[in-house]
Amino acid sequence: MGAVRALRVRDGATAVAEVPTPAADGEARVRVTLSGLCNTDRELARGYMGFAGTLGHEFVGVVDDPGDGPLARGTRVVGEINAGCGACPRCATGDPRHCSDRTVLGILGRDGAHADYLRLPARNLIAVPDVVSDLQAVFVEPLAAACGILERAAVAPGMAVAVVGDGKLGLLCALALAAAGHAPVLVGKHAAKLARAARRGLATVLAADALDRARSFDVVVEASGHASGFALALELLRPLGTLVLKSTFHGQTPIDAARLVIDEIRVVGSRCGRFAPALDLLARHAIPVDDLVTDVVSLDHAAAALARAGEPGVLKLVLTTA
Amino acid sequence: MGAVRALRVRDGATAVAEVPTPAADGEARVRVTLSGLCNTDRELARGYMGFAGTLGHEFVGVVDDPGDGPLARGTRVVGEINAGCGACPRCATGDPRHCSDRTVLGILGRDGAHADYLRLPARNLIAVPDVVSDLQAVFVEPLAAACGILERAAVAPGMAVAVVGDGKLGLLCALALAAAGHAPVLVGKHAAKLARAARRGLATVLAADALDRARSFDVVVEASGHASGFALALELLRPLGTLVLKSTFHGQTPIDAARLVIDEIRVVGSRCGRFAPALDLLARHAIPVDDLVTDVVSLDHAAAALARAGEPGVLKLVLTTA
Repeated sequence: MGAVRALRVRDGATAVAEVPTPAADGEARVRVTLSGLCNTDRELARGYMGFAGTLGHEFVGVVDDPGDGPLARGTRVVGEINAGCGACPRCATGDPRHCSDRTVLGILGRDGAHADYLRLPARNLIAVPDVVSDLQAVFVEPLAAACGILERAAVAPGMAVAVVGDGKLGLLCALALAAAGHAPVLVGKHAAKLARAARRGLATVLAADALDRARSFDVVVEASGHASGFALALELLRPLGTLVLKSTFHGQTPIDAARLVIDEIRVVGSRCGRFAPALDLLARHAIPVDDLVTDVVSLDHAAAALARAGEPGVLKLVLTTA
Repeated sequence: MGAVRALRVRDGATAVAEVPTPAADGEARVRVTLSGLCNTDRELARGYMGFAGTLGHEFVGVVDDPGDGPLARGTRVVGEINAGCGACPRCATGDPRHCSDRTVLGILGRDGAHADYLRLPARNLIAVPDVVSDLQAVFVEPLAAACGILERAAVAPGMAVAVVGDGKLGLLCALALAAAGHAPVLVGKHAAKLARAARRGLATVLAADALDRARSFDVVVEASGHASGFALALELLRPLGTLVLKSTFHGQTPIDAARLVIDEIRVVGSRCGRFAPALDLLARHAIPVDDLVTDVVSLDHAAAALARAGEPGVLKLVLTTA
């Protein structure tokens, strides 16, 4: 195998380039089938976290070289994106998400999935059941992140739950909460996006009208990616409520810290979730992810797709290596 | 009874004035013996929360009119400062701290304790055991607030705990944590204040040197009252750690929200604690509060004392009605 394609970012420029086929070097090598474009890709392309390399952390593929893992060549797989050192106390628990020496696929110190091939530690790979299509499997990573909310916040039956942010992330968080038996209200600024969510069975409300329910929610998930979303989420929370911070903001976010103290609010950051619960949801077809896909685009046109991913009305764009 | 003294704040001016003796009107009336000056008093005097009325929320006194409560006239008492409506679901649990119609002694819609007399719902009063002196009893409220940390954060044995802020609040938080069996490190900017804490058996470190232990603490309590303290507390926390926000800041505090998400930090606001555990600590003489008192001053000189409370080297100032 010689040169292969990859969506590279370097010094603020993003382009598909020819790169050497990655050597497995003791890890597993995966031939990528599909990869999903994420808002984080767009932020990394703009220089967030100083990333340089191949973008992409949502994928489904086929094992090309199993490395030291048990999965046979040809197995259809997804892969958890945090690669730990494998030796520290955190990794010893089987959870590398907070290993201080971790690399993260397409995000931190490791080339990503918008490419013909990628490599990951063999232990990160999970076989995809036959009942989950390739297109569905691309959603395991973002869905796992959405399900991660439930790892971090004690959401009890009957609690009033809201999700602030009507983009991809907010929608997926709301769908994950609904699949877990809760009845989240999706709060957003865009009537069209809320209508899209309502068609999927979610309760929705415009941000301007949400304040009618100020200080009434037990749990509010901030998934808007904007500081104003954080402020709104705080407004919606009852005293002793929990704000789940799901989206990352650039720079410093101004918050009303006195409100956190006076109303004894709990703010919990939530990043990556585990793949197993998300894959289980997909296998049970509990979340209709297929209709979240706006388009499937050739990897050759990945740079243009990345630009398009931010356009109004575009939900998930998926890249194909075929 | 005719006119009595009270430390009044109105339109940015603070002075001791003659006011009518408060009528009990179904609540209990307490003749105040001692009251403690708190940083919150100074902030309220500067216009925080738009408070107007009699300041003061730390006190010990004697029941003058028991209202509808069981305590006999003459009983020595302290009193929880949140007065709930008594009818809402939160009050029904016996905890009025988050009743949306609450008043708060000397803080919100209710005259306070820097006065000859105060009134509170009879259910808020707690008799003081004989083994607790008047001077010690003045510390029940701030100590309860410090103990409130343990209501809000799961601090397990062996955890690495730090308190940021070497003022009264930080010192009391650290002492409360130590009394509960933990080994907090007090982090501050003032060598003299840290030395004072060290004499009380606490481990201490200068803020500038604390970063040698960055990202290593399981729980960090922010008690500095400054936005820079919040940033430092965040620096000290390990991934998945808990930041207890104890001090209130004016206005908006800039925070690194991305750090909260990436490291899945938990931020919990903590305001008032229950009095019973704090009174128990005082009865067991588990915390040497007597030597936290810098001076006892006549209520007549309360306005000057309030100004003095912010001077370097001054710890707790106590007002006496005698």
